[in-house]
Amino acid sequence: MAESTNMRLRLPLLCIILEVILIVLFGTLVEYNDDTDAKLWNENRNHSATRNDHENEFYYRYPSFQDVHVMIFVGFGFLMTFLQRYGFSSVGFNFLIAAFSLQWATLMQGFFHGLHHGKIHVGVTSMINADFCTGSVLISFGAVLGKTSPVQLLVMAIFEVTLFAVNEFILLSIFGANDAGGSMTIHTFGAYFGLMVTRVLYRPNLDKSKHRNSSVYHSDLFAMIGTIYLWMFWPSFNSAITNYGDPQHRTAMNTYYSLAACTLATFAFSALVNPEGKLDMVHIQNAALAGGVAVGTAGEMMLTAFGSMIVGFLAGTISVLGYKYLTPVLESKLKIQDTCGIHNLHGMPGVLGAVVGSVTAALASPEVYGHGIDFHFPTLVRTDTYVPLYPILLRLQRVFADVETGKWNPQSKGGFQAISLAVTLGMALFGGLITGLILKLPIYGAPPDTQCFEDGLYWEV
Amino acid sequence: MAESTNMRLRLPLLCIILEVILIVLFGTLVEYNDDTDAKLWNENRNHSATRNDHENEFYYRYPSFQDVHVMIFVGFGFLMTFLQRYGFSSVGFNFLIAAFSLQWATLMQGFFHGLHHGKIHVGVTSMINADFCTGSVLISFGAVLGKTSPVQLLVMAIFEVTLFAVNEFILLSIFGANDAGGSMTIHTFGAYFGLMVTRVLYRPNLDKSKHRNSSVYHSDLFAMIGTIYLWMFWPSFNSAITNYGDPQHRTAMNTYYSLAACTLATFAFSALVNPEGKLDMVHIQNAALAGGVAVGTAGEMMLTAFGSMIVGFLAGTISVLGYKYLTPVLESKLKIQDTCGIHNLHGMPGVLGAVVGSVTAALASPEVYGHGIDFHFPTLVRTDTYVPLYPILLRLQRVFADVETGKWNPQSKGGFQAISLAVTLGMALFGGLITGLILKLPIYGAPPDTQCFEDGLYWEV
Amino acid sequence: MAESTNMRLRLPLLCIILEVILIVLFGTLVEYNDDTDAKLWNENRNHSATRNDHENEFYYRYPSFQDVHVMIFVGFGFLMTFLQRYGFSSVGFNFLIAAFSLQWATLMQGFFHGLHHGKIHVGVTSMINADFCTGSVLISFGAVLGKTSPVQLLVMAIFEVTLFAVNEFILLSIFGANDAGGSMTIHTFGAYFGLMVTRVLYRPNLDKSKHRNSSVYHSDLFAMIGTIYLWMFWPSFNSAITNYGDPQHRTAMNTYYSLAACTLATFAFSALVNPEGKLDMVHIQNAALAGGVAVGTAGEMMLTAFGSMIVGFLAGTISVLGYKYLTPVLESKLKIQDTCGIHNLHGMPGVLGAVVGSVTAALASPEVYGHGIDFHFPTLVRTDTYVPLYPILLRLQRVFADVETGKWNPQSKGGFQAISLAVTLGMALFGGLITGLILKLPIYGAPPDTQCFEDGLYWEV
Repeated sequence: MAESTNMRLRLPLLCIILEVILIVLFGTLVEYNDDTDAKLWNENRNHSATRNDHENEFYYRYPSFQDVHVMIFVGFGFLMTFLQRYGFSSVGFNFLIAAFSLQWATLMQGFFHGLHHGKIHVGVTSMINADFCTGSVLISFGAVLGKTSPVQLLVMAIFEVTLFAVNEFILLSIFGANDAGGSMTIHTFGAYFGLMVTRVLYRPNLDKSKHRNSSVYHSDLFAMIGTIYLWMFWPSFNSAITNYGDPQHRTAMNTYYSLAACTLATFAFSALVNPEGKLDMVHIQNAALAGGVAVGTAGEMMLTAFGSMIVGFLAGTISVLGYKYLTPVLESKLKIQDTCGIHNLHGMPGVLGAVVGSVTAALASPEVYGHGIDFHFPTLVRTDTYVPLYPILLRLQRVFADVETGKWNPQSKGGFQAISLAVTLGMALFGGLITGLILKLPIYGAPPDTQCFEDGLYWEV
Repeated sequence: MAESTNMRLRLPLLCIILEVILIVLFGTLVEYNDDTDAKLWNENRNHSATRNDHENEFYYRYPSFQDVHVMIFVGFGFLMTFLQRYGFSSVGFNFLIAAFSLQWATLMQGFFHGLHHGKIHVGVTSMINADFCTGSVLISFGAVLGKTSPVQLLVMAIFEVTLFAVNEFILLSIFGANDAGGSMTIHTFGAYFGLMVTRVLYRPNLDKSKHRNSSVYHSDLFAMIGTIYLWMFWPSFNSAITNYGDPQHRTAMNTYYSLAACTLATFAFSALVNPEGKLDMVHIQNAALAGGVAVGTAGEMMLTAFGSMIVGFLAGTISVLGYKYLTPVLESKLKIQDTCGIHNLHGMPGVLGAVVGSVTAALASPEVYGHGIDFHFPTLVRTDTYVPLYPILLRLQRVFADVETGKWNPQSKGGFQAISLAVTLGMALFGGLITGLILKLPIYGAPPDTQCFEDGLYWEV
Repeated sequence: MAESTNMRLRLPLLCIILEVILIVLFGTLVEYNDDTDAKLWNENRNHSATRNDHENEFYYRYPSFQDVHVMIFVGFGFLMTFLQRYGFSSVGFNFLIAAFSLQWATLMQGFFHGLHHGKIHVGVTSMINADFCTGSVLISFGAVLGKTSPVQLLVMAIFEVTLFAVNEFILLSIFGANDAGGSMTIHTFGAYFGLMVTRVLYRPNLDKSKHRNSSVYHSDLFAMIGTIYLWMFWPSFNSAITNYGDPQHRTAMNTYYSLAACTLATFAFSALVNPEGKLDMVHIQNAALAGGVAVGTAGEMMLTAFGSMIVGFLAGTISVLGYKYLTPVLESKLKIQDTCGIHNLHGMPGVLGAVVGSVTAALASPEVYGHGIDFHFPTLVRTDTYVPLYPILLRLQRVFADVETGKWNPQSKGGFQAISLAVTLGMALFGGLITGLILKLPIYGAPPDTQCFEDGLYWEV
């Protein structure tokens, strides 16, 4: 007899327990930062002759935050409504796991990125980072879309957010890697984590729900809402947490051109791979976004519009080809059932982005960056938080960088970027494996093979 | 014989007369303010050594304004498209009455909030306030959705906007209450005004249109567009007109966490109250937003993320329970036909927000707010406009606050917040009663009982 | 036998060739500007005592850019989804030609608006300008919607972007005209260009596809997404590239009031022209936007809210009347098949906007603008780029302006604004004629008369 899919106790219990834990931990650990605390802000402002309320970081980060927020909730949410009878779950579960993940991410990232006297300080930058981490979970959601219960998704989010924060800490704080737009930390990590989870959850009889695993006319239009919002706001996504000034400005612009070039490649190859030359909505909805993924690391560097367009064009191309030729093989040979094709939108373009970032960093020079090169590439280990592993890792760094002399070294920088990709892949695959095994337990009310991709199982329809 | 619902003369006449009146009043009364007038801005800038064009308030308020604007037109508009055959009217009438209300609100709010030598000064802050007032009208629209003609809605807007401005004036200018996000002025007022209107317009035979008073699959997806936009931009809504600096930053963040916690509560209780544990789209679309309403007053205070999450969780819980258990009772016992369930989304959470605001204000202390406490809680009566009632009201204030010594007094502040709630409820219920009686006249082309919730009555379909 | 509509070779070839050309030209010609280049920004910042990263133009232009970006991709894209079976093409081809046009526009506008030592400098302002130019192409797309292949649309974009840049150069750089919101350069140009193209492509047997040239219920709701986004963000559109400070603030506010008044006029006249007094979705979707078009030139001037509302009300009125009475005549008498009715939304309101701009400029005085009048109306020829035509044009200017004395002259200014309209109309009609003739060649895979307004021709459905 099939496992019950009734959520009446499971889902409320899990949600309430999680929220209570979150509230207790927030009450214990979280404090306003200097820009959100009334007393601290007033004191800082009064002690500075030139500082005024207009300089609060809110005014320089919040518009970017809102664009990112739209991508997370509308972008990812509607992108996945393409299935004919899974729109409620796509938008709804996206909503649920994002609302949970951003709270949990605040804690995990705060814990790893630097406690202040044992407290986590929050403000608009931590909100952007929490949304970023959430994005990674939503990417993984794309791989298992239609085949998981909301309880499974929440459990996945618990583990994925935690591992995301660990991986991000290793890359940014220990290796000193650059990854402002998250080609590695968000896209590569989220994609390979999700692919491994869906591999472990492999369903040999999924074709029993095959007739529901496709789109209808209007569901494809809803999905285009998601696509277009992701596309439009990707420049904000990649630039949201770069340094102020030229890097933020440049990142937005590089992403803009990369996406434009990617879109032309997507239309070109979508028509080319079809015998009748007809365009495929799956490609337009997804591959056109690969250009944003692929400049997630190098976008803040002096990649130039020219370089961005080349990268975007490549990303769109490999993404369409992936949908056409690779996805069927992954499913038939490797037993990876990737509902949204996240390997094509986030996996391969994320790896491409990591490689481009590594090369661009290795080619950096003061002739191009001026005296700000140290500012753009802070290679040295950040020492504002004590971490027991530092001694070992510092020794590791010496292999690559002139840490002791503090001299900037582009080649070692490029090397660290490359190692960051390898670590990310390892963390994602290992984490996905463990998480997948946990999610395989028959206690979460997962849908039977005959009822996948169907809203009616978990929703009043 | 039923009243004619033909709008051919009624609607054009009303629209044109209203717009002509608006244009005449704007021509007579409205002027650019210091930040929008070419001459004034140039003079002010030239006389100040440090002031430059970058300090125009446009750069610090306009992004918030646009987010609020999206909530008013896309958020409210699409939220109400959940009905199967009322999408044109939901988005369309929302559009019409919002476009009227924001103009009328500019005049009413300008009149009450301070004339400058007999003129109303306008700029981005007045635009935000006008949109806020419009939001209140759209909340009331939710109660009568499907049962009113566009002419009725415009007439309702005329009265509601006027009373809104009076109530807002009493709360903010006379009581010196804090209510940046409008838990009281916008949500409580709009909800109880609308509930009273729909009570007066009670239709005993509304079940003749029962088959249309429900959603279909795609109409629920359109409604989710509204939900998600409201949810995402609520941090901007609550923070749009707070003071610059830490209050604005903090308000946005408190709202962010309140909404996240509210969403988990909504999913939890939606599954819990359903015998099969299935989620209900009505709850997700509405109750998940209650967390934004409930921190509308206290959001700018030092509520902390922790406090915000508790409030949000409570708001989501009472909202879902309201939809499940209270709405049917309100309809059967009190004859309140509340189409969108605004009592659950705006009414109860608004009252909760007022109470939370009152308590948080009463608990405020210089230890928490630093020397900025006077700035955050400007208790004293604002004297920039002359109001005949001041002598009486000043005497009233003395009961609560140390007005004469100018000493800040948190308890009296909390008291004023509580009185503000009572006044708002009174104004809303009384205003709704009068307006409802006016709308009951058989001259507006209201739909017959058999034709409610039907676009075909007023639209070419 | 009908021409093949198979896109398998045509579309990929054209896309790839165009993108390769773009990449080569960007590699050769395009450089980061002072605010996006790492070295330049660092040097400029270090040499200035007061300049800091917060003053990067990114923070003052990027939020406006994103609003414009949403209008281009969501606004235009979804506005055109009203057709029952053309939603994929509406959003999809809009996406494709916009992604191409913004790249091509960067080059064309950069070329005409001032090379720096032979290089085009790019930043957020050039991104906004490129999106603006793209908007013009999308307006023309509205006229030929449903009757053209994607290859035709790309070819149209090549020519239209080029001519747009020439016309914009003549108006802004030579005539010194003001047109921040593009009543002339964007709307009038795009509309009459598109109308001429569709005239040349006249299909006498288009009624064979008549049954598809209409909306269904949900397609009209998708279109309203486009409408509402255009309406909400039009204040950002008109103000995106004005000067900083009061002009940007004022422009946004004038547009806000113009649109509000326009909306009431639209509802009034839509009901009035229908025998049963029923509202028509076509009017609401389109005419309500005419108020944004009509203040595209004068919005930055001291038009006042009062003046803006009069202009908006007029624009809505003529637009609805145009849909009702003029469009059928244009089709039957002038053989202009204007699918979206761009003549009513962009054509007539654009001309109205040009006239209003001309009059408002002629009425300008230092009493109203203060000492900033030279700043608001830079009449003199900009001499930062060498242009062979200058000697002739300077002589032309002397007819109107006191160029030699440098004295500001409002009447000559108004005259130049009027001439700008005439030049724009000439350029648009001539350009549309040539482009139309080129598009008539039977090599682009245009749809047969029986298959217009049908996604299935170019999309996997």
